[in-house]
Amino acid sequence: MNKIPKPLIHEENLDEIFHPRSIAIVGASENVVSFGYQCLRYLCKGGYRGKIYPIAPQKKKIMGLRVYKTLGEVPGNIDYVICCINANMVIDLLRECTQKKVKAVHLFTGRLSETGDSNRRGLEKDILSEAQKLGIHLIGPNCMGIYNPRERITFNHDLCMEPGTVGAIVQSGGIAGEFVRYTALRGVRFSKVISYGNASDLNECDFLEYFLCDKETKIILMYIEGVREGKRFVKTLRDATRIKPVIILKGGRTKAGSKSIASHTASIAGSINIWGGALRQARAIQARNLNELIDFAVAFYFLPPITGKRVGIIGGGGGNGVLLADEFEEAGLDVISIPEQLKKLLESRSPILAKWVGNPVDFSILHGFNVDYVEVVRSVAQSPDVDLLIANITGESPYHKQMLTTFLEKEVNAYLTVAKEELKPIAVVMKNPELVADQARNWRWQILFKQRERFINNHIPVFSSHGGVAGVIRKMVDYYQGIEADNFSTV
Amino acid sequence: MNKIPKPLIHEENLDEIFHPRSIAIVGASENVVSFGYQCLRYLCKGGYRGKIYPIAPQKKKIMGLRVYKTLGEVPGNIDYVICCINANMVIDLLRECTQKKVKAVHLFTGRLSETGDSNRRGLEKDILSEAQKLGIHLIGPNCMGIYNPRERITFNHDLCMEPGTVGAIVQSGGIAGEFVRYTALRGVRFSKVISYGNASDLNECDFLEYFLCDKETKIILMYIEGVREGKRFVKTLRDATRIKPVIILKGGRTKAGSKSIASHTASIAGSINIWGGALRQARAIQARNLNELIDFAVAFYFLPPITGKRVGIIGGGGGNGVLLADEFEEAGLDVISIPEQLKKLLESRSPILAKWVGNPVDFSILHGFNVDYVEVVRSVAQSPDVDLLIANITGESPYHKQMLTTFLEKEVNAYLTVAKEELKPIAVVMKNPELVADQARNWRWQILFKQRERFINNHIPVFSSHGGVAGVIRKMVDYYQGIEADNFSTV
Repeated sequence: MNKIPKPLIHEENLDEIFHPRSIAIVGASENVVSFGYQCLRYLCKGGYRGKIYPIAPQKKKIMGLRVYKTLGEVPGNIDYVICCINANMVIDLLRECTQKKVKAVHLFTGRLSETGDSNRRGLEKDILSEAQKLGIHLIGPNCMGIYNPRERITFNHDLCMEPGTVGAIVQSGGIAGEFVRYTALRGVRFSKVISYGNASDLNECDFLEYFLCDKETKIILMYIEGVREGKRFVKTLRDATRIKPVIILKGGRTKAGSKSIASHTASIAGSINIWGGALRQARAIQARNLNELIDFAVAFYFLPPITGKRVGIIGGGGGNGVLLADEFEEAGLDVISIPEQLKKLLESRSPILAKWVGNPVDFSILHGFNVDYVEVVRSVAQSPDVDLLIANITGESPYHKQMLTTFLEKEVNAYLTVAKEELKPIAVVMKNPELVADQARNWRWQILFKQRERFINNHIPVFSSHGGVAGVIRKMVDYYQGIEADNFSTV
Repeated sequence: MNKIPKPLIHEENLDEIFHPRSIAIVGASENVVSFGYQCLRYLCKGGYRGKIYPIAPQKKKIMGLRVYKTLGEVPGNIDYVICCINANMVIDLLRECTQKKVKAVHLFTGRLSETGDSNRRGLEKDILSEAQKLGIHLIGPNCMGIYNPRERITFNHDLCMEPGTVGAIVQSGGIAGEFVRYTALRGVRFSKVISYGNASDLNECDFLEYFLCDKETKIILMYIEGVREGKRFVKTLRDATRIKPVIILKGGRTKAGSKSIASHTASIAGSINIWGGALRQARAIQARNLNELIDFAVAFYFLPPITGKRVGIIGGGGGNGVLLADEFEEAGLDVISIPEQLKKLLESRSPILAKWVGNPVDFSILHGFNVDYVEVVRSVAQSPDVDLLIANITGESPYHKQMLTTFLEKEVNAYLTVAKEELKPIAVVMKNPELVADQARNWRWQILFKQRERFINNHIPVFSSHGGVAGVIRKMVDYYQGIEADNFSTV
């Protein structure tokens, strides 16, 4: 990987915006259906360590915090303002901000361009002009703003507050929260995430530049509905992908989707063909949907750079292995013949096994033979013909509770033992049950969830869809092969 | 739909095999790692109401049941034998079976052709010859046999014992269990499922014929690795799809997959292109993977025949709706413009809403306006331009526990209220979290699981993947349009 360059185009450093020492919430409220209430609750419950100033015309205290009538009344500095008031009042607020030298205003406030109403579109323009005149940066309007777990700033309830290395630029506020929550469940931790809505002032290019230079961010994920500055975006993207993987999900790829983004973030979709071509040229990776974006986050977060396509698949039952092999080969990966190391091991124990077992290695065949799981897994991991090992875990063995528990524990132990030897990267595939309330506490799912947790705690990624993991790994290998070729050609 | 014909080719009626009044388990055992133990436990714990005869050389009692040394010692008739003994002993067993006029033997016994060993392949042939000579039908070898919840016969632990109308013919025992378990979680109930392994005697054609004629079975799903009688299979499939939907997942579509099926069920994959062509001609629906097979089971089980492609999507956040619209249009479905009925409703409440809201209907826009969820859902369901309504449920609203609970409850109530009016079929999309142990009891997932359960209890199907549901619905519409065209052309 290349060295991180200095910020490329923009002079302003957004670092101060992502690390405010004090935040004022304008439109703070005790009314639970208001965002003035919810925003304040995010920060208080999230444990934000800086100063929080609720601004509201009447209340004296909200959530135990003193309320100020105006920004001017606040004793200290205000770095960052979260604006939850009506759009008509925003211009006045911006003027007030100058008194406190506010650097950026996050406009949670919406109902502007996205409504399709020309007056409101005009108002959004006026707000931008005023902000530019006053030298104040805007995030939004119509967005959820910042999630920065290091600073304990969050844009939704109960998000994980452990920091990590994944940065995300997400135009939609709903997707931003959903993405962080579901990706964190998979063990991924974030550096920063920004939800930026209508992108009236700061847009995807500004954030991409910032994340590209940000040392806390090693992988960049994006959900984009429309691009404000096409050429600058492609240029920045090219710079970024030389340094960090950038994975992008585009919303509004179809007629119906495009219409929908207009009323969501007032974005213009652009031609999906031009878009796809530009991304390919810039070596950005395209995700097809939110599940794939999450799978990409997991793969890049946990796995080292993999530049070979040869996979060894272990575990699962026979049919499960067949289906997994099909998906991997269909994705363009190479499900090699049984590795020599494993063949020799099996020959030494039973000639019939050596002829019978293949890749995928069906564990159920080994039943009753004198072969240990650990040696099987190790022999595949040791093979110079294998670039990546796939562990296929199923809770569907034909055993009852005690036996299944013991069996799974032993199986997972084998992978964890070999993983510690750092012979090859390992990824796990494990089906995810779609639970209903009365099944949530069933022992079977609890056992699977426990084993999934053990893998994740040992930094081994777990995927639930056969096709999903195959596609993501294939694109990941392509990305790293491309990078390798680039580096070689510039030697 | 056409009338169900009489059995087409085979004279034997497999009905007796699927409804045995007594079962002998040969090789019954107290050793928990043996299948002689597990099989017996399936029947005892599953609550099989017929007579169970454990056969073993020594033990006097297993699981409280009297053990017999030979089949001949058993006092009553034996309809069905589950054989868990070594392959070398099977021919002797078959001879013993004639004393009791056994109709069918399920050979759980494996390690025959699938090992790739020529002696064992020979033994499998000899077993078949002997069975044919003695007039005994074989299921397997190398399979899990029958799941028939009406008879409380099961081939794995803790499977749902409530009967339904889905029949499944599944070559792999592991896939059979996994398929039943994960599909039942989604609310689908089965008539019968057969796992038939190496298909030495009874094969996919026999079972397809049986399921085609079986009045308890309204939908047929198959997982096939290889076909034993190609021409007969295509002919039977054509007959079947005229009467019931048949959905097929093919294992062994690739080189790696083909190699794998040889060592799994000793099947020969055949060309995937010829296979695909034959299925299309026979109007069978192809599933790409196990998740899709399960989604098909859910769609055909819960939804009425849908012959139009126009969808109305409601709910979710803005970004979530954009992504869902993209997936539906990419799948070839028609995400229509906002229905007239909804437009009129919104115009009567707020001119801005009528211009702003589209299809998908973003509920978050309605926040603060005087519009009720029920009237919105109803107006879309009433539209003559909508063939199917998609409810997009997300737990990712920016609210805290109490509010989110109330909000989701209200949202789901709206769908359930309109569903009772039977205006249009409704399908739900709801993301599925990949839980780890310490998250399983988190309130957020519990709420989602509860709402999922409410939908299913009200016979509304719930899907978790945007792309998954879009693809399945598209293929379902194609199927019903094809049937409609056939019926029209034969009038």
